Amino acid sequence: MCTAATYLTKDFYFGRTLDYEFSYGEEITVTPRNYPFHFRHTENLEKHYAIIGMAHMAGDYPLYYDAVNEKGVGMAGLNFVGNAYYHKEESGKKNVASFEFVPWVLAQCATLDEVRDLITDLNIVDTLFSENLPAGMLHWIISDKSGSITVESMKDGLHIHENPVGVLTNNPPFEQQMFMLNNYMGLSPKQPENHFADKLDLNMYSRGMGALGLPGDLSSASRFARVAFTKMNAVSDDSEEESVAQFFHILGSVDQQRGCCEVSDGKYEITIYTSCCNASRGIYYYTTYSNSQITAVDMHREDLDGSVPVHYPMLTKQQILWQN
Amino acid sequence: MCTAATYLTKDFYFGRTLDYEFSYGEEITVTPRNYPFHFRHTENLEKHYAIIGMAHMAGDYPLYYDAVNEKGVGMAGLNFVGNAYYHKEESGKKNVASFEFVPWVLAQCATLDEVRDLITDLNIVDTLFSENLPAGMLHWIISDKSGSITVESMKDGLHIHENPVGVLTNNPPFEQQMFMLNNYMGLSPKQPENHFADKLDLNMYSRGMGALGLPGDLSSASRFARVAFTKMNAVSDDSEEESVAQFFHILGSVDQQRGCCEVSDGKYEITIYTSCCNASRGIYYYTTYSNSQITAVDMHREDLDGSVPVHYPMLTKQQILWQN
Amino acid sequence: MCTAATYLTKDFYFGRTLDYEFSYGEEITVTPRNYPFHFRHTENLEKHYAIIGMAHMAGDYPLYYDAVNEKGVGMAGLNFVGNAYYHKEESGKKNVASFEFVPWVLAQCATLDEVRDLITDLNIVDTLFSENLPAGMLHWIISDKSGSITVESMKDGLHIHENPVGVLTNNPPFEQQMFMLNNYMGLSPKQPENHFADKLDLNMYSRGMGALGLPGDLSSASRFARVAFTKMNAVSDDSEEESVAQFFHILGSVDQQRGCCEVSDGKYEITIYTSCCNASRGIYYYTTYSNSQITAVDMHREDLDGSVPVHYPMLTKQQILWQN
Amino acid sequence: MCTAATYLTKDFYFGRTLDYEFSYGEEITVTPRNYPFHFRHTENLEKHYAIIGMAHMAGDYPLYYDAVNEKGVGMAGLNFVGNAYYHKEESGKKNVASFEFVPWVLAQCATLDEVRDLITDLNIVDTLFSENLPAGMLHWIISDKSGSITVESMKDGLHIHENPVGVLTNNPPFEQQMFMLNNYMGLSPKQPENHFADKLDLNMYSRGMGALGLPGDLSSASRFARVAFTKMNAVSDDSEEESVAQFFHILGSVDQQRGCCEVSDGKYEITIYTSCCNASRGIYYYTTYSNSQITAVDMHREDLDGSVPVHYPMLTKQQILWQN
Repeated sequence: MCTAATYLTKDFYFGRTLDYEFSYGEEITVTPRNYPFHFRHTENLEKHYAIIGMAHMAGDYPLYYDAVNEKGVGMAGLNFVGNAYYHKEESGKKNVASFEFVPWVLAQCATLDEVRDLITDLNIVDTLFSENLPAGMLHWIISDKSGSITVESMKDGLHIHENPVGVLTNNPPFEQQMFMLNNYMGLSPKQPENHFADKLDLNMYSRGMGALGLPGDLSSASRFARVAFTKMNAVSDDSEEESVAQFFHILGSVDQQRGCCEVSDGKYEITIYTSCCNASRGIYYYTTYSNSQITAVDMHREDLDGSVPVHYPMLTKQQILWQN
Repeated sequence: MCTAATYLTKDFYFGRTLDYEFSYGEEITVTPRNYPFHFRHTENLEKHYAIIGMAHMAGDYPLYYDAVNEKGVGMAGLNFVGNAYYHKEESGKKNVASFEFVPWVLAQCATLDEVRDLITDLNIVDTLFSENLPAGMLHWIISDKSGSITVESMKDGLHIHENPVGVLTNNPPFEQQMFMLNNYMGLSPKQPENHFADKLDLNMYSRGMGALGLPGDLSSASRFARVAFTKMNAVSDDSEEESVAQFFHILGSVDQQRGCCEVSDGKYEITIYTSCCNASRGIYYYTTYSNSQITAVDMHREDLDGSVPVHYPMLTKQQILWQN
Repeated sequence: MCTAATYLTKDFYFGRTLDYEFSYGEEITVTPRNYPFHFRHTENLEKHYAIIGMAHMAGDYPLYYDAVNEKGVGMAGLNFVGNAYYHKEESGKKNVASFEFVPWVLAQCATLDEVRDLITDLNIVDTLFSENLPAGMLHWIISDKSGSITVESMKDGLHIHENPVGVLTNNPPFEQQMFMLNNYMGLSPKQPENHFADKLDLNMYSRGMGALGLPGDLSSASRFARVAFTKMNAVSDDSEEESVAQFFHILGSVDQQRGCCEVSDGKYEITIYTSCCNASRGIYYYTTYSNSQITAVDMHREDLDGSVPVHYPMLTKQQILWQN
Repeated sequence: MCTAATYLTKDFYFGRTLDYEFSYGEEITVTPRNYPFHFRHTENLEKHYAIIGMAHMAGDYPLYYDAVNEKGVGMAGLNFVGNAYYHKEESGKKNVASFEFVPWVLAQCATLDEVRDLITDLNIVDTLFSENLPAGMLHWIISDKSGSITVESMKDGLHIHENPVGVLTNNPPFEQQMFMLNNYMGLSPKQPENHFADKLDLNMYSRGMGALGLPGDLSSASRFARVAFTKMNAVSDDSEEESVAQFFHILGSVDQQRGCCEVSDGKYEITIYTSCCNASRGIYYYTTYSNSQITAVDMHREDLDGSVPVHYPMLTKQQILWQN
């Protein structure tokens, strides 16, 4: 399905994989400050923070999958089928359609604390973008350099969780994902000590045995544990080059290879793209399943005071550098 | 440590990861047909098949880590510390120093069957390349499009195993690695069926649950199982572009992220490079930890009738394509 | 900690293990119909169903750990530390002290449906039996031959769950335990089929490989999965002898051996006793850690119209039958 | 299949489970000192150490499954199908038929060191007891209070392994079983420490989490790991009562419940019996699947200078102690 992660060195990085069996035609999209956001149930925003991210352009409307704004707040929606539930409009609440949630937040909030304030009394409503575009059943991770939260709209209401690990995958709900991390408590990047039996001469026959028990399959709970372990133990210097490389390695730990997750006969879920936003600097880096070179779009190379979204197609053709 | 894999579509692909905490300075090296191979204990080869692969150049001598020859045979040496044992020279045997084994095979064999014949009466000897260059303790995978074998020189002699899975990692010995795959027999890229209890309404809450139980850590036995599952279930079309992309995804399943395998205080094993040779066409593709773009060297762009190895430094600087 | 299970053949069986590092002095206790139950917040019961079970006798008051009544309803309280939360008395609710919950239910309900009705508007209150007897932090399984429910009083209120698997252990809350069973969906008492790779000749080197992945440790979530698998796949004929034997084997799958769960230096949690009530016939069978012979108390051999609890000490001395 | 274990307190205990889908009719059998052992290929023994153990009586010949002798040496044969290989008679070797191996050893050796000497030049031959009694394909554990060895006759010859863990199950060969214990090195009876991520507040929600990762299924490799963990961490005082109880708990950890291991349609492997010999005192304790009371036969209550084996049927009827 999908995995999101954050990473903090000198700058703050935010990204995700999008795993699916086909693409809806995503584009890297910069929405400048004066693009008017007309929301279905709440006040319009004629002027707002600029946003860069991956979006499906529905006409001129950017349906963001994941994005950061010019203030360094990042947000991504990830599949949450079976648990996500969007409600009816309710008076006295801030009614936001699920497809509006990403821009509604990123347009207005300069920090995660502002997000926390904004989403008080939030009601995520089931209003569709259009009749022929069913709503994605999602939950969201919202982050800045200070931390992350997870927002889940379920049948029993809205749940806002602090997300101390800074990762998100899919089912089950976030609290359960966090709970299940307890089961991996003893795993370590260091070699294990023999606690099994001090009278047995057990042998570390390989490096990396301290994390034996970490799951390696592609289910959402296993990806949560694996990316959490990888992210929490990740080491890099704080240069842009090394930070970005490290971020792609973190999400690479949950890459979905074609063939390993068959969703129906001959249809396979794969990691369509992997993104890494430098949220501090407004740069959107990405790779795709077929193109491992990092491609980048810099929001600050666009006219951020414009009023029309600028969008770039995802480059999916392998770019090979021939050395001879 | 390291992982090697093969992949067959229209062409035959052979490659590996090299995982370590530092680099010895590898270079992509083409050894042309007339470079004289002077072996320590066996007959010299003044003329032979051309070879391309990753090598540490010791003076003008290519110490190959992994390579393919112009006939489509690939070979890689992987760490086998604790089990590898090189013997004394023995008369009546083909005495080959461990560091000579890759070129000795690739220089002479056009097929895996020829390899099988050649290594009859092989004795891998402990002769050093030079006094200050200790021998890597290795075992080897040798492959062509028809299959793979694994060669392990141990205290009790030389073991040659058919390798039906076409992957290799490190300890324990290959037969044990294969045996342990039996434990994962029931894993599948398809969703599981409920065999736990037909009276319980169990729920597939995520895609990818059929492979629950696949290990996700970086130890050599876990990487063996994971890359075997990924490779055996890999799906791609047979174009060069898609085959190469798929190959890098296969080895990406065992990528070692900096921080997840601490080998001593603050020292981490990482995937220094990942290679994918199109063995059918003599092209060496690679990525490095810090450079995710695929770089390529094509042996056929060199003068294969030359007598001096041509070598290219590994390009480790991230190559970012700016889209705006 | 503890495990409870049910088993249905011709009769209905209900029992549990009690795992702890010391005993409070339990006794097999028959409470006859005319023992007056004086509840702290609800109406007294001067006449009620007779009850047999394991209890700590506090004066003449039976503090039941697990019991069945003469109508075939069984109930057990199991540790739920960290999640159990008892509330203040609340008007308009049925306020039952946690220590009263077992007799309050078993005294009045002839079926699980009657239990479901009775516990409408239940409020489990934090009233203590006495100042020096802290309340056990528990959740409960209540069962008859038609099924089981689990009752959990938590900070956010009372949760009543259908329990289709008929087992209970400890943390986490029941819904999460049930959710985690999904991860074991593919496990089977039958041998696995090779879904890993149809081109590999994998080998069933042992019987019983279909359940590879079933956890074997003593934590509460692992015991839940293991006893659920064992119970759901248990096979016996419906004779009393074989049913009882099978029941002890089911709970034997989660037996806690001294030494395997160290709770503080040199203190080990063990299975102090294992019980199996024939709930249909009012017989309480048990074994203890040190006495593997089944000892039995039959409620119908007591005067069930009496007014004083009859209690038998737990026989803990090994009874060995010498055959020569 | 089967599991054997040893346990040392003041006395030395040796026992096993026999797991199968039907019984051949075992009996507890004392072979006195003057029963003449006529071996097929080696010298007869007219006088020897007395033996007590479980045997199938073939006429008056005791085919021992597991036994101890009066000197405190214990020995058991466990299924090893697919790996066991018995050889042809070979001159210059001690040729012992597989069915003779237990009495041939126990009749002559007072210590494990004497066993080590005796089995020099051993050749386990494929001579059958009789034409209609196929040879069980076995490997053996031989133990005294000083330690244990494992003897495996395979296609490539006889393997004698020191067995530092003092347990045995079935496939794969012993060395591989021992090797796989390395994977459980970090497991502990104590609670785990958080090595996953020091910045996450992970929670020990249950006792017993230190052994998460211990396998709970009934396959032979999983039973090996589980019984090894249980035995190596077992704690008891050194009284006979507590030692015997603890021993049955150790083997109880690998009890096979009816229904959990289906070997063909409707046929289930179960733990037919579990034995615990006090090897120091010549007492054979056992329980059966249907009879959890410990039954005992004391060799010293027989005339050990006799010449005819004394055998007692296995008591399989549940012995219930009625307390009221």
